[in-house]
Amino acid sequence: MATLVNSVPANQTSVNDRGLLYGQSIFETMAVANSTPCLLDAHLQRMRKGCSVLGIPLDIDAMVSDIETLAQDQEKAVIRATLTMGEGGRGYLTPEHPQATRIVSLHPYPKHPSSYWENGIELGVVDIRLASQPALAGIKHGNRLEQTIARSQWHSNWHEALALDQQDNVIEGTQSNVFIVRDGELATPGLNSCGVLGVMRETIIDSAHKLGIRTQLMSLSLADVQAADEVFMTNSVIGVWPVKCLNSASFNTFKISHKLLKYIIENEVIPNYKA
Amino acid sequence: MATLVNSVPANQTSVNDRGLLYGQSIFETMAVANSTPCLLDAHLQRMRKGCSVLGIPLDIDAMVSDIETLAQDQEKAVIRATLTMGEGGRGYLTPEHPQATRIVSLHPYPKHPSSYWENGIELGVVDIRLASQPALAGIKHGNRLEQTIARSQWHSNWHEALALDQQDNVIEGTQSNVFIVRDGELATPGLNSCGVLGVMRETIIDSAHKLGIRTQLMSLSLADVQAADEVFMTNSVIGVWPVKCLNSASFNTFKISHKLLKYIIENEVIPNYKA
Repeated sequence: MATLVNSVPANQTSVNDRGLLYGQSIFETMAVANSTPCLLDAHLQRMRKGCSVLGIPLDIDAMVSDIETLAQDQEKAVIRATLTMGEGGRGYLTPEHPQATRIVSLHPYPKHPSSYWENGIELGVVDIRLASQPALAGIKHGNRLEQTIARSQWHSNWHEALALDQQDNVIEGTQSNVFIVRDGELATPGLNSCGVLGVMRETIIDSAHKLGIRTQLMSLSLADVQAADEVFMTNSVIGVWPVKCLNSASFNTFKISHKLLKYIIENEVIPNYKA
Repeated sequence: MATLVNSVPANQTSVNDRGLLYGQSIFETMAVANSTPCLLDAHLQRMRKGCSVLGIPLDIDAMVSDIETLAQDQEKAVIRATLTMGEGGRGYLTPEHPQATRIVSLHPYPKHPSSYWENGIELGVVDIRLASQPALAGIKHGNRLEQTIARSQWHSNWHEALALDQQDNVIEGTQSNVFIVRDGELATPGLNSCGVLGVMRETIIDSAHKLGIRTQLMSLSLADVQAADEVFMTNSVIGVWPVKCLNSASFNTFKISHKLLKYIIENEVIPNYKA
């Protein structure tokens, strides 16, 4: 596994980095297919937004260069691109002119059975309720304790698990976004007070639009999800996973989920899971 | 500034450390007076609790040894002791047998005018509202984006600033806890859904008890704080700072604040600010 720290191969960074001290960072996890980082522009756009909210200076050319360097000669891989606030400052006070630390690392593409895409996954529900924080909602920042706790609550047979907020709204999967299909239309939570605005989530909304499928952003309860015609989970690495069961609910048709999966594979926004 | 990483002098740590990737860590900031870490047992106790909640294995002897090594020959200083989940795992999934990373660093004691202790500070109120997350409330963990945002919202004349939760309850200072004095008794927020259970907060409650002053844990509004007889802020480094003004409210008596400050200085739980 290769890592570039500020464009130089390295495997260490400063103990005084504010990313380590306070989680003051943003990151993107993206698939690589045939030496090309998938959905790079969309990842860079979310990175720009996160950096703008947190005040981290982003050198976009250097970021793209490091990502493309690691993607070279990779048929199928995953890249994590992190940007931290760097060193300096006093306590919680960020330095006036921060020097960001850029950490870009290459990882193997995860091995999942093709049945996850073809026959659906088992979806659970974690106990932890996500906190509402509109100031940080949507951003993929480095404060991810809730997700590590959520992940520790998975049962062994689950392949992904929903997290609800403290008002019983379904928000997202532990490492994915959730969509339901109802009467031929999509619905997904709006994520104004918590959750991550996934790059694949946006891609799916856009792809559905091109296929003539409408998407509503709306509050969803667990009962709404269980009563849906189809449920599917999305992220930048796996694309679309249909859900075959959630608690006592089972789903037998994956028609729209598979239509969207086929569309994004044909448009090369994820690696082909069969390849 | 000296730093020990797993007991060895170092200034770098792995780019794959889960403290850096996800803020999966706890930390303590403690004062050192005359080569002795102040309130060490109380800091270790909070560390134990945080590690237990997050599942980070704590080698207490090694932690104490590293802290005491750095405290040696320091008349007045600050030590930050961090314990991260270390490397390994897959994404949000923590490794089954994590190897924690221990990072203990020595810093100069901050220079503040003695008037902050004697004549009180100017207290502001930040815009960001703290998120409610009972699963993490009280713990001094590494997900501190809210505090860095709060700190960035201070006006230049403020010396500390209150943060409220989303239901308008006063929770804490940006880097301290808050107490009010009303009719000769103390009141401070209970911190069950957000905020940090400060080591100095506990020490003050205990000291007040010994001095025959009762403390109530209760919800406080900003109006309650403004209408108090006295207001003071506490943390492990500064001890007690009385508040002289908050918005349009000003406070002219520091009788109980100063009684508590005198008591903790005499009991050597903070360095003497005059020294």
